[in-house]
Amino acid sequence: MSTIAMPEPRADVLARSSQIISALKAALPQDTVISDPQETRAYECDALTAYRCPPLAVILPRSTQEVATAMRVCYEHRVPVVPRGAGTSLAGGALPTADSVVISTIRLREIIEVDMANRFIRVQTGVTNLAVSAELDADGFFYAPDPSSQLACTIAGNIAMNSGGAHCLKYGVTTNNLMGIRMVLTSGEVVDLGGPLLGTTGLDILGLLCGSEGQLAIITEATLKIVPKPEGARPMLIGFESAEVAGECVACIIRSGLLPVAIEYMDDVCLRAVEAFAKAGYPACAAVLIVEVEGSEDEISDQTDRIRAISDELGAVEFRSSQNAEESLAIWKGRKSAFGAMGRLGDYLCLDGTVPVSKLAFTLKRIGELSKQHGLEVANVFHAGDGNMHPLILFNANAPGELERAEAFGADILRLCVDVGGCLTGEHGVGIEKRDLMTTQFNTTDMAIQMEIKEVFDPAWLLNAAKVFPLEVSEPYRERALAR
Amino acid sequence: MSTIAMPEPRADVLARSSQIISALKAALPQDTVISDPQETRAYECDALTAYRCPPLAVILPRSTQEVATAMRVCYEHRVPVVPRGAGTSLAGGALPTADSVVISTIRLREIIEVDMANRFIRVQTGVTNLAVSAELDADGFFYAPDPSSQLACTIAGNIAMNSGGAHCLKYGVTTNNLMGIRMVLTSGEVVDLGGPLLGTTGLDILGLLCGSEGQLAIITEATLKIVPKPEGARPMLIGFESAEVAGECVACIIRSGLLPVAIEYMDDVCLRAVEAFAKAGYPACAAVLIVEVEGSEDEISDQTDRIRAISDELGAVEFRSSQNAEESLAIWKGRKSAFGAMGRLGDYLCLDGTVPVSKLAFTLKRIGELSKQHGLEVANVFHAGDGNMHPLILFNANAPGELERAEAFGADILRLCVDVGGCLTGEHGVGIEKRDLMTTQFNTTDMAIQMEIKEVFDPAWLLNAAKVFPLEVSEPYRERALAR
Repeated sequence: MSTIAMPEPRADVLARSSQIISALKAALPQDTVISDPQETRAYECDALTAYRCPPLAVILPRSTQEVATAMRVCYEHRVPVVPRGAGTSLAGGALPTADSVVISTIRLREIIEVDMANRFIRVQTGVTNLAVSAELDADGFFYAPDPSSQLACTIAGNIAMNSGGAHCLKYGVTTNNLMGIRMVLTSGEVVDLGGPLLGTTGLDILGLLCGSEGQLAIITEATLKIVPKPEGARPMLIGFESAEVAGECVACIIRSGLLPVAIEYMDDVCLRAVEAFAKAGYPACAAVLIVEVEGSEDEISDQTDRIRAISDELGAVEFRSSQNAEESLAIWKGRKSAFGAMGRLGDYLCLDGTVPVSKLAFTLKRIGELSKQHGLEVANVFHAGDGNMHPLILFNANAPGELERAEAFGADILRLCVDVGGCLTGEHGVGIEKRDLMTTQFNTTDMAIQMEIKEVFDPAWLLNAAKVFPLEVSEPYRERALAR
Repeated sequence: MSTIAMPEPRADVLARSSQIISALKAALPQDTVISDPQETRAYECDALTAYRCPPLAVILPRSTQEVATAMRVCYEHRVPVVPRGAGTSLAGGALPTADSVVISTIRLREIIEVDMANRFIRVQTGVTNLAVSAELDADGFFYAPDPSSQLACTIAGNIAMNSGGAHCLKYGVTTNNLMGIRMVLTSGEVVDLGGPLLGTTGLDILGLLCGSEGQLAIITEATLKIVPKPEGARPMLIGFESAEVAGECVACIIRSGLLPVAIEYMDDVCLRAVEAFAKAGYPACAAVLIVEVEGSEDEISDQTDRIRAISDELGAVEFRSSQNAEESLAIWKGRKSAFGAMGRLGDYLCLDGTVPVSKLAFTLKRIGELSKQHGLEVANVFHAGDGNMHPLILFNANAPGELERAEAFGADILRLCVDVGGCLTGEHGVGIEKRDLMTTQFNTTDMAIQMEIKEVFDPAWLLNAAKVFPLEVSEPYRERALAR
């Protein structure tokens, strides 16, 4: 039993399900509509696997026009729609409801245009994050946001969740790298926003869509800013005997005026798991930072020296600066395999909250205390330079009540993030996971503004229902919409 | 006679004017409310001086609470409100209507907090752009957006217009450097968005407010991202015998993967004016670029060499790379005095459109052709690396019909920007100046979405009326709001 409630499926929709499926099949190519329960089951969850529910049907369109057709049919039949990218959401952002139709962007795989002079790439949004950078590699460019799931996750999901990644400290998250989109409104109308240049006229609707978690529209094409690869880069690994001191070191680096491209943090629980799994040769200590700097050889040396001085002063017990490509790979190897390694330890909940970097040390200390209090182990592996924490709460999904305890622990951590001046999410989105915690960060006015803006785009409240907004605040809007 | 229509002032508001002024005076400190026509005249226009209209009253609050009181009184009396920063808008963004109350942020001058570890400064929004960077100077940090008017313009106006500046090529515009705001809604309610870290939860309302041109709320405090000053910087001046080739050079630099901190463009009309005014020692040629690069000495040398190679290949007739601080100042001196210098030539309209950098050469050529066609001279001085053009149309305001001809020429240039894939504004906003051109960039659905979002914040349509949205599309909304 899990603790997050989903609304009862709408009986009127369930009663009309065969009619709805027929309408979708009549309007779309045959292989685009999946309604066999054996097959829809593959879409019953995303990466938050504790929650599962097969949808009425799944649509796999091959063009913006097919997405528009599917949206129009769903709107005409007033069927809830759940947009889906690759299904890698850790927050349940793509969890279906029993009365919903999933519309996936996964078959929209075309790389439409690369334009070096205007520094953009235009793609359909089913293209994976890594495929975008792969396309640019030979020209010496890349697309900066790099979520850990970049091999699988799609640009559609990256935009919906405003994804970040290790390199976002220097290059910003998705919203800082998004120049334009093509989107399909709930009515089926196709709208283009932005284009081959950064900059907006009138209200910034493009920015509003980025991070909107499938609440406003389905995005089918994106124009993404591309950046040149740096002349050189060097990671260093710094070990500490105290988690808090490692956190303090991050704040000192940032305060000093240095701008590393990445500052990643791993604690001892994570380090042990990673060593057992990937044998990266990491030291046994309370916490390590991986700090990567970029630039010319001189610049790299200078930054490395300054970071070494800061960490020495804080009593670092280990300092390795990569001397060549092989050592760089070794330093990153463990970090990149951290989530896989943790998976071998058992079940875990991967949280995603953000705190001001000056509060990292305090937050890590409090998480340790909360871990004892809840009787569940926690591992910390995250993008420390941005204050974007990813505590992994370890639990046994087969032990009755443990998921609920893990969720309660997670909620305490997220409340802590808000309390120290941070926010509920860094890059995973709110989804269903943090939905009921929105009231800790937002008051009634804040949420009313957000929901009324949703209503501008989605007057019938069909898009990605029961996500982002707590049910007690969103249901009155939805019911009013249904009554219209 | 000017060509941009403003709506008739609402007779019911004018009839109640003494009652409204009394209510404002009763609710606010005496020296906060200006209603003497001799004194309100100082607020009858902004930097688009061709359009003037004194408001009913001007409020100069000293705190967020006083802004809230003023907003509440105006809302209760259903009086239009015109938010105003320093009044430097070139697009008429702060032009009053006769039935409006101007609420200015100019007395909100407190620097509240500087936080190095979390890299932000929190200020009241009446602080000038330059005062923000001045506050950070001793610590080796600065605030990146740097509009030409930075000595006078305030953070309130910078946020409202999403201002840029010469250094935005590398550091982004205001929206990329804004972490949080405190704003006052039309009802007088105070809402905080964002805070000590970049990142959002739920819909990105903060991003929506940035660039909203006073249509949604009045922003009274801002948390701004601060960045470390570079180790070193070097401008170079490159002269060309053809405006188009100078434009092509910009595209080649960007295409090559270089990321200068600034690429500025000046044409011969501008160069002659600048030489007469500032005697900066600029060469006599068809166009010059000022390109500034940053980093360590090695990095600067390397980038300078690569830019020299690109410009040599395009047949540059002049290449000066600064060798010391004095030469750097000399190179920037002319650019920084360009608007003052142009002012000595007579009246001008300063436009603000953006084009993809690959289209700079073509756009410059077409502007030259349009200049001949309209019989008015044009000077081009702008942020070329971002494609953010600022054509200055020279005319004689005392010659009957010349303003109208200049406006018609300006409209043709802005249509051209949209036609080549650009947009109507880079950093000045739409205001009244480009209001009637919005239909060239946006269709009915696009504008309906924007206006319905405005309505979420401003249900009575009181905030900054007759700006941004063409009257024929906004008036039905406004009338419907008045009838409610």
